[in-house]
Amino acid sequence: MIEKNKIIETYNFRHACKVFDTEKKICEEDFLTILETGRLSPSSFGFEPWKFLVVQNKKLREKLLPVTWGAQGTLPTASHYVIILARKQKSMRYDSDYIEHMMSDIHHLPQEASEARRNVFKTFQEKDFALLESERATFDWSVKQAYIALANMMTTAAMLGIDSCAVEGFKAKDLEDVIAKEFGVDTAEFGVGVMVAFGYRKDPQKVKTRQSMQDITQWYN
Amino acid sequence: MIEKNKIIETYNFRHACKVFDTEKKICEEDFLTILETGRLSPSSFGFEPWKFLVVQNKKLREKLLPVTWGAQGTLPTASHYVIILARKQKSMRYDSDYIEHMMSDIHHLPQEASEARRNVFKTFQEKDFALLESERATFDWSVKQAYIALANMMTTAAMLGIDSCAVEGFKAKDLEDVIAKEFGVDTAEFGVGVMVAFGYRKDPQKVKTRQSMQDITQWYN
Repeated sequence: MIEKNKIIETYNFRHACKVFDTEKKICEEDFLTILETGRLSPSSFGFEPWKFLVVQNKKLREKLLPVTWGAQGTLPTASHYVIILARKQKSMRYDSDYIEHMMSDIHHLPQEASEARRNVFKTFQEKDFALLESERATFDWSVKQAYIALANMMTTAAMLGIDSCAVEGFKAKDLEDVIAKEFGVDTAEFGVGVMVAFGYRKDPQKVKTRQSMQDITQWYN
Repeated sequence: MIEKNKIIETYNFRHACKVFDTEKKICEEDFLTILETGRLSPSSFGFEPWKFLVVQNKKLREKLLPVTWGAQGTLPTASHYVIILARKQKSMRYDSDYIEHMMSDIHHLPQEASEARRNVFKTFQEKDFALLESERATFDWSVKQAYIALANMMTTAAMLGIDSCAVEGFKAKDLEDVIAKEFGVDTAEFGVGVMVAFGYRKDPQKVKTRQSMQDITQWYN
């Protein structure tokens, strides 16, 4: 159990940190804790449709720079920079090898349970959400799950006194070319869901702005 | 700062809790802390494209039941049940009243900065991500942001010793009819992004299964 004031402090500490102090590196133990809570994140059906690329190589970060307008300050200064990949239809269809692998080797489902699960997932993909209507719909669904891991990694960082910045400001198609060519990613299987930079703030954070609780909640008692 | 072992404990405590103990209610202070960390969650451009409906009314929960196969155990037993709405194109287009409201009244941007911001957002929506190519693409992008709030609320719950279950198992179209008719939601502006139930576990949690760290990470040094 963690005290309420510490929890609220954590979420107030987290802000979109646009430039990091290049003198300060995140220690290995802290960064692995961040990644571990990404790994432990929940996902729909438990299919973990993500992969985390940790980009420490300076030349590779420079390749990202021209296609990532949202990280002009963080790419050159982040202690750790993570590309969160999300899985495409090729590996996320109910009848793919990846789904079979997840159910058999990770969830350890017996054959019969695995078949039943696949059928539920098939209906979910084909009917409930019409996810198979386009490559984009399937991919965006994977990305939604990846945002859970993103959120958890940023929260964990904040709990450790580490700053972060989520990066959505990129040219999706151009970035995909870069990760195929420079990072050796199989872009038939993966696309870039979102990116996130970690480090220690250089400047004080700005005042947080949010809609009021009243604006964004409605109770049905 | 929160200790690393407590952080990992928190993420291990969180699991998809399928049935809650109906004898135990979450106290108001705890539940408001959960909502508050949803409110403080980050979102792309700071546009907070979400709304949280807290469904405590028994009859309304019963209306959800037939269209929500993923919450058959949690809808009747949850201490608190939340529908997370996400905004549709009508209010999320770069030239909408809502975006204007967010920039003027919430972010307090001066006129000039607001115009510049709108232009960046326009390019982002029209070109970088082609979000305006369909209602679905815009909505799915809003839902991605809502998943950050979802993740944070579940993590906060776990920090407070409270269980949760994210609910994606619903018939999207049918559920939308229900929230329009029974909840008075303007479904031209909002759709259901995801739902989440909170309470205290009735049964012990199962062993967590995840891919290994090696399976889901790649370092570029």
